[in-house]
Amino acid sequence: MSSRRRGLRPLRRLSALRRAGRRRTSPSPDIAVARRQKAGLPPGTVVHTGTRYMDEATIDLISWAGPDLVEERGVTLERALEHYREAQEAGRTTWFDVAGLHDTDLIEGFGAAFDLHPLTLEDVASVGQRPKLEVYDGYLFLVARMLSLRVEAAGDDGDIDDEDDVRLDNEQVSLFIGRDALITFQERPGDVFEPVRGRLRAGKGRIRNRGPDYLAYALFDVVIDTGFGILEHYSDRAEILEDAIFEDPHPSLLVELQKLRRDALMLRRAVWPLRDVLSSLARDEGGLVTDPVRAFVRDALDHAVQAIDAVETLRELLSGLHDAYLSGVSHRMNEVMKVLTVIATIFIPLGFLVGVYGMNFSWMPELAWRWSYPLLWLAMIGLAVGMLRWFRVRGWL
Amino acid sequence: MSSRRRGLRPLRRLSALRRAGRRRTSPSPDIAVARRQKAGLPPGTVVHTGTRYMDEATIDLISWAGPDLVEERGVTLERALEHYREAQEAGRTTWFDVAGLHDTDLIEGFGAAFDLHPLTLEDVASVGQRPKLEVYDGYLFLVARMLSLRVEAAGDDGDIDDEDDVRLDNEQVSLFIGRDALITFQERPGDVFEPVRGRLRAGKGRIRNRGPDYLAYALFDVVIDTGFGILEHYSDRAEILEDAIFEDPHPSLLVELQKLRRDALMLRRAVWPLRDVLSSLARDEGGLVTDPVRAFVRDALDHAVQAIDAVETLRELLSGLHDAYLSGVSHRMNEVMKVLTVIATIFIPLGFLVGVYGMNFSWMPELAWRWSYPLLWLAMIGLAVGMLRWFRVRGWL
Amino acid sequence: MSSRRRGLRPLRRLSALRRAGRRRTSPSPDIAVARRQKAGLPPGTVVHTGTRYMDEATIDLISWAGPDLVEERGVTLERALEHYREAQEAGRTTWFDVAGLHDTDLIEGFGAAFDLHPLTLEDVASVGQRPKLEVYDGYLFLVARMLSLRVEAAGDDGDIDDEDDVRLDNEQVSLFIGRDALITFQERPGDVFEPVRGRLRAGKGRIRNRGPDYLAYALFDVVIDTGFGILEHYSDRAEILEDAIFEDPHPSLLVELQKLRRDALMLRRAVWPLRDVLSSLARDEGGLVTDPVRAFVRDALDHAVQAIDAVETLRELLSGLHDAYLSGVSHRMNEVMKVLTVIATIFIPLGFLVGVYGMNFSWMPELAWRWSYPLLWLAMIGLAVGMLRWFRVRGWL
Amino acid sequence: MSSRRRGLRPLRRLSALRRAGRRRTSPSPDIAVARRQKAGLPPGTVVHTGTRYMDEATIDLISWAGPDLVEERGVTLERALEHYREAQEAGRTTWFDVAGLHDTDLIEGFGAAFDLHPLTLEDVASVGQRPKLEVYDGYLFLVARMLSLRVEAAGDDGDIDDEDDVRLDNEQVSLFIGRDALITFQERPGDVFEPVRGRLRAGKGRIRNRGPDYLAYALFDVVIDTGFGILEHYSDRAEILEDAIFEDPHPSLLVELQKLRRDALMLRRAVWPLRDVLSSLARDEGGLVTDPVRAFVRDALDHAVQAIDAVETLRELLSGLHDAYLSGVSHRMNEVMKVLTVIATIFIPLGFLVGVYGMNFSWMPELAWRWSYPLLWLAMIGLAVGMLRWFRVRGWL
Amino acid sequence: MSSRRRGLRPLRRLSALRRAGRRRTSPSPDIAVARRQKAGLPPGTVVHTGTRYMDEATIDLISWAGPDLVEERGVTLERALEHYREAQEAGRTTWFDVAGLHDTDLIEGFGAAFDLHPLTLEDVASVGQRPKLEVYDGYLFLVARMLSLRVEAAGDDGDIDDEDDVRLDNEQVSLFIGRDALITFQERPGDVFEPVRGRLRAGKGRIRNRGPDYLAYALFDVVIDTGFGILEHYSDRAEILEDAIFEDPHPSLLVELQKLRRDALMLRRAVWPLRDVLSSLARDEGGLVTDPVRAFVRDALDHAVQAIDAVETLRELLSGLHDAYLSGVSHRMNEVMKVLTVIATIFIPLGFLVGVYGMNFSWMPELAWRWSYPLLWLAMIGLAVGMLRWFRVRGWL
Repeated sequence: MSSRRRGLRPLRRLSALRRAGRRRTSPSPDIAVARRQKAGLPPGTVVHTGTRYMDEATIDLISWAGPDLVEERGVTLERALEHYREAQEAGRTTWFDVAGLHDTDLIEGFGAAFDLHPLTLEDVASVGQRPKLEVYDGYLFLVARMLSLRVEAAGDDGDIDDEDDVRLDNEQVSLFIGRDALITFQERPGDVFEPVRGRLRAGKGRIRNRGPDYLAYALFDVVIDTGFGILEHYSDRAEILEDAIFEDPHPSLLVELQKLRRDALMLRRAVWPLRDVLSSLARDEGGLVTDPVRAFVRDALDHAVQAIDAVETLRELLSGLHDAYLSGVSHRMNEVMKVLTVIATIFIPLGFLVGVYGMNFSWMPELAWRWSYPLLWLAMIGLAVGMLRWFRVRGWL
Repeated sequence: MSSRRRGLRPLRRLSALRRAGRRRTSPSPDIAVARRQKAGLPPGTVVHTGTRYMDEATIDLISWAGPDLVEERGVTLERALEHYREAQEAGRTTWFDVAGLHDTDLIEGFGAAFDLHPLTLEDVASVGQRPKLEVYDGYLFLVARMLSLRVEAAGDDGDIDDEDDVRLDNEQVSLFIGRDALITFQERPGDVFEPVRGRLRAGKGRIRNRGPDYLAYALFDVVIDTGFGILEHYSDRAEILEDAIFEDPHPSLLVELQKLRRDALMLRRAVWPLRDVLSSLARDEGGLVTDPVRAFVRDALDHAVQAIDAVETLRELLSGLHDAYLSGVSHRMNEVMKVLTVIATIFIPLGFLVGVYGMNFSWMPELAWRWSYPLLWLAMIGLAVGMLRWFRVRGWL
Repeated sequence: MSSRRRGLRPLRRLSALRRAGRRRTSPSPDIAVARRQKAGLPPGTVVHTGTRYMDEATIDLISWAGPDLVEERGVTLERALEHYREAQEAGRTTWFDVAGLHDTDLIEGFGAAFDLHPLTLEDVASVGQRPKLEVYDGYLFLVARMLSLRVEAAGDDGDIDDEDDVRLDNEQVSLFIGRDALITFQERPGDVFEPVRGRLRAGKGRIRNRGPDYLAYALFDVVIDTGFGILEHYSDRAEILEDAIFEDPHPSLLVELQKLRRDALMLRRAVWPLRDVLSSLARDEGGLVTDPVRAFVRDALDHAVQAIDAVETLRELLSGLHDAYLSGVSHRMNEVMKVLTVIATIFIPLGFLVGVYGMNFSWMPELAWRWSYPLLWLAMIGLAVGMLRWFRVRGWL
Repeated sequence: MSSRRRGLRPLRRLSALRRAGRRRTSPSPDIAVARRQKAGLPPGTVVHTGTRYMDEATIDLISWAGPDLVEERGVTLERALEHYREAQEAGRTTWFDVAGLHDTDLIEGFGAAFDLHPLTLEDVASVGQRPKLEVYDGYLFLVARMLSLRVEAAGDDGDIDDEDDVRLDNEQVSLFIGRDALITFQERPGDVFEPVRGRLRAGKGRIRNRGPDYLAYALFDVVIDTGFGILEHYSDRAEILEDAIFEDPHPSLLVELQKLRRDALMLRRAVWPLRDVLSSLARDEGGLVTDPVRAFVRDALDHAVQAIDAVETLRELLSGLHDAYLSGVSHRMNEVMKVLTVIATIFIPLGFLVGVYGMNFSWMPELAWRWSYPLLWLAMIGLAVGMLRWFRVRGWL
Repeated sequence: MSSRRRGLRPLRRLSALRRAGRRRTSPSPDIAVARRQKAGLPPGTVVHTGTRYMDEATIDLISWAGPDLVEERGVTLERALEHYREAQEAGRTTWFDVAGLHDTDLIEGFGAAFDLHPLTLEDVASVGQRPKLEVYDGYLFLVARMLSLRVEAAGDDGDIDDEDDVRLDNEQVSLFIGRDALITFQERPGDVFEPVRGRLRAGKGRIRNRGPDYLAYALFDVVIDTGFGILEHYSDRAEILEDAIFEDPHPSLLVELQKLRRDALMLRRAVWPLRDVLSSLARDEGGLVTDPVRAFVRDALDHAVQAIDAVETLRELLSGLHDAYLSGVSHRMNEVMKVLTVIATIFIPLGFLVGVYGMNFSWMPELAWRWSYPLLWLAMIGLAVGMLRWFRVRGWL
């Protein structure tokens, strides 16, 4: 009955956690969450489903044709389209870089200006998309997930690190690749694309002489290279955790392990679909990806396959760590048991012996003998030594 | 022998459970159950195999062509077909929405009126079908599973939640897509399709200007979006269970874990086949799916793939939870063993010592000494302190 | 050394079991057994490798063409072929149903009369074939496995059920589909085909107007429907076992679990190949499967995929049960350890205390004090209560 | 520190084992071993890498055309080629059966006489090849692995069977199929091919009227049938081991389990590639496999698939056995713990009680009472009985 | 609270390890590490990412055409290109063998001279590439991983071997196959290619009469053969570890097991992609691989498949070892528990008995009897013997 009552305790706790569940902020952005807010709306409705990171969505644009380059930052949609018309006349390629997805009017404005399919606009605003490539007449639509690590303020949830807590972040980037323009949408203004912008400005490399397809590749390349840095971070954490587990398999390490496993799952979901996306891109027959760029896309595909490899290796290591943890715990328990057994096995029989001579029988001749006491000590020491020897032979000491 | 006798107890219990097994109502609708009632009947026989949820099967219908829309609810088959003929003449598209599958005459009536293949009629009535698409001359036949969560009255089976118990429900929806009509069959009148009906009535969106193929897509879209909500529910429950397990790995939580695992299996069975169904639909060459709708179907396919991803992630998390549970239990046992070992290892040797001086030998000189007693106390305290130190060094305290 | 000697005991037992192994009858019909009796014989030799279930192989035949139907039972091969010639002249389709495979002359007689490939005849007689479809010029050769449950007399092998023991049986059925004839071979006269025969006699459904291809499909349909019943039986047993394991994880339940796992493996081997067989049949280009029947075959394929799904679900459930078993055992051990620890932790220190005052030192002032004894009792009660509190705080009580 | 020192012991042992490792003879012929002796040699060098089983390699040959048959045994290469020329003139098919691979000159002699590719000759001599089929101009080159069981003299390595030890042996067979000749190479003269030779001599079956393709098939058929016998042997051993594990999960059984697992891996490696080999052979377009033989090859393919099935089933059973072992060990430990707990829980409190009345306080009124002693006995018996009851309720007795 | 405080200790340790993590040298060269140093650079930038093994990169070259052979070692790029022009005029094939990748000018010099794609040059310098084959106009680009074992000085990281420590090394080799030249890049001057160079010099075999395609194959063949030697080394280590684990499952062996598992993962990553690389090479349609060489490439493919097989077998063995370890630990714990239980179960009741007669009740008639003491001894010996018997029956002794 007491056991029944006890059984209820974790259940009551489970209910309490469940009630609390709705109110807490889920730590990992889950795909399912994103979709749910839209059930019942007609398809193609542009609804922003993620967090709003900034007050105003911004448009940065840059257009170039060989040595000729014009850049404007933080303009309105009208000005952006005007710039585009001028660039088009001058034969320049234009890159619109939009940050902030909550301004659905802006997204729909782009949709109207470039005649984009409503479903692609819906996907732009609805974060939590799987990486994918869709081919439309006159443009390609790509979605990728840009991973980053964010340092969080000291934890509210029983953190296992005393300094700071690094969290895996997972932002959605959408690209429209047209013949003379590239439109990119990010959730917040990221400095990840800054090096590419710098290369455009500097005129270094081949980026100035190629169209939007090469620019899209360059951005993808940055996204994948960032991903490798993150994989390295996790690989390091896994190795450190491994050392810690081999040193002392404490259950608090399991929390870190479970965290790494979840993050590895998220990495996997971000990385695996890239293979299909990039191989479709490399095979594109609509003429939007030019032949010289195709070789670069194949190279990016190659890097994506490397990243997939690394993610799978990470996952294997992590699943090996759980085995190591269990083995370590078993071994520790074994050690504890051996100590208990050695002590108990030596002293319980000795305790029995001294108990015998503590008895009050009137006829116990040994009690009266002169050498009984020293002899008993000798016998007890001999017994203890013999047992220790036996334990050593069995390999317990 | 006692052990043998005991061995019989669980077996006798197993037999008792087995005898009871036939009588209880299986909590999860199993595919196998559905098929079995029909063994031996000729193929194509329309037999209802599920639960009867309503007294009378109902037919709701609605027909439209751009701005022109006519709606009727709860009509007879005759009236429905009459309405259809009128709609056909007026060039309107018609949607028949049938709820309730026990009225096999009604199903066969539709079969006769629209010349549907008897095997499809059999599948409509026989719940427990896997999602599938079958191409017939002049129409497409689709089956999908519509998931929903139903709150049950407080449990009869050792419930682990004190308030209420949510159960995963799994209803079969069949669709016939023709050139100018869509027929849908549900097990019970569902309000899931209501938003689509609302959009039809409101004339919002592109739904009024498209044929039955777009309507079918819109219904599928609702079904998948509902599925995402359910996935989110399970994802939450899994995270809450995880917290509870890390807090206190009690075996009652295993029951919840096993329940989640079963439900995840059911989700998987409902979601995986959608990929094949939707990609076949997107490739359909019979002209029943028009080109503009094809893009929408591909979008639904994309969402189905996302849902598959989410289900697999859920399953991975759940299988990780079992590992976490076992690790937690091991750790707890370790803790218990350490306490036992520390106490026993300190007090058993001390007990031996005091036993020594409880002996009644006539020649035990220490007994007569003045400082024996205080010195023994000092020695014992020293021993205890030394052992505690040693335990601390070993990391047991 | 004692441990070495003990180590030999299970080995000696293993040897004894091994020696006994040859003599016992293997409970599950193993594919390997069937093949082995034939090593060295030239290929195409018709040798019966299974059990002989009946004295005389029997031939039942029935021929029909629309309303015209002739039936004969238990005839000789000569009479059967004569009947066939008559039926052929009258344009009737004929079904030869042979039960009993030990009469290899009979099988070879059919081979000669219909010009069947010797390898197919070998396969007919050699039970333990995997389901398969082979296309020959003028006929198709199919093998399927017909599952059934047989109740056995109370067990000789430490049965876990007191009433009766159900065993999974696995019979081979071979079909030759020709243009105007169907030949079926079974191991024993089965009443499974009786409903189909009844439908033929009754003239109900479309069976009378179709050729041997539809009849073959109808038989396959019966075989698959029977399989669903068996899957349901195992699904029930798995659920009952699950309840029993959650109630009391006794090792005797493992025997049942292992049995279910083996049977699930056998089910799997019978069901998986059906997918290939039926999809090949649906694609058959030799004209032996007519177009209207093709839709029915696709339906059977659909059911086979459902059955595969159900088998895989069963296997997942069973592998989850082993985890549940281990968790249950761990939890039980934990409970036992807690009781031991609580008792030992409370009473070993108390035992030490009372031992102290049982010492016989001449100078122990406490012994003489008036309130020592009651104070000690108070102290001991206080200690015990404190420890109980501490255990409750730790969640051990 | 003692623990550190102990930690070194198994490591020192590991080093010792490692040093010994080079000298011992590896029990399982490993693919890697075979290759290694050749690193650095130019490709196409014929080097024998396996064991030399016989002093002189022998050539047996037989040639036939319908009723005409000539046989010679143990001839030289020159005589063999002369015989071949005669046979060729007489339109006879010739089978060269070479046993012993150490005579590389002989192999190269065949290579020169029949113009075989040097890489194939290298593969013939280099045992440890994976089964494969290579198509060359004018001939096919096949490698297969012929499994056999060899009884070893009583073991030097802590054998678990007191009588004898059966070892899985794995011999390489290479076949060259030409238009009018078949050359087979074996590692030692095997009596496995004897039945085929007998059928050739007897003129029974279709073997006399077919070319080298049918003979190659017949040899393959023998190899596969032998494999089924071996699979049966392992299936039996697995079942016997299962019974032994359920009876008494002793760690010595793990050694047998590990052995079976390794052998199952070896079986798998021998059997899996046969599927590709045989399906390539059945599809051969070079005209070396004639149409009538193709049906036989497909039959052999079918048997190979059956064997793969059986190997996978065996592997599943073996992996289930490890689970069963762990469960058994857990259960045993549980039983041991229960006994300890019951005894300790009953007697430690009683020991405390008798300790109380062994104290020497001057004021302990109970000591003087007349009924103290019998009452204490009653109380102690009551306590013990109560505890036993409680244990029974908890299901520990 | 003490438990909470303790819980922090491993966490603090984890943080310390984490802080240290950045500074230590990662033992296994991780793919992720290589990529990361380049994030943000434009694609096609040649950056060396690995270790610099030598001061100066060296170029060795050799050119031949049948009997005519010229060799120069350690030349400059200018001289190398001059040599190439001469060789080209004389119709000789040239092999440039570059060791050392840090001299990016040198790599770019080759790129300029032979018009190689910048992305391939980037891959040459950026170690950590997956094996791959890329087809360019006029040349093929291949990357492979050359495995080797390096003996390390006695360990700084708690080595488990007292003599020396073997480490798996993983060097990148890049090959450009042109029509009349082969360029190879290695990280350090390896003597692995020496035998091939020797064969070239000796004029033995067919290597002198073939072009760069055959030379590339010959190098690949050496790389794969080296790989087999390494697989054999790991196979041996796994078997030795297995013996050690069966002898004494000490946790220090787990470290070795984890090491082997990681190395097996690295082997796998080096070996698996070779299959695709070699099968693409065998299918090459650009005319760079000539028909006679194609057969050799297929042979290398065959060996790669063998190596994959061996790696997978190794991985299966290693994962089996973890199971064996856990089983061994369980068994040991069982043994320890049995000893404790036997001793405690015998002596705790006896201790209670002697406690009874140590009580000081005034009315304890047994104390005065003459034979009490010897009778008690008899009873206690009888009890002990009885219990020992019972333990033997239960199989605990």
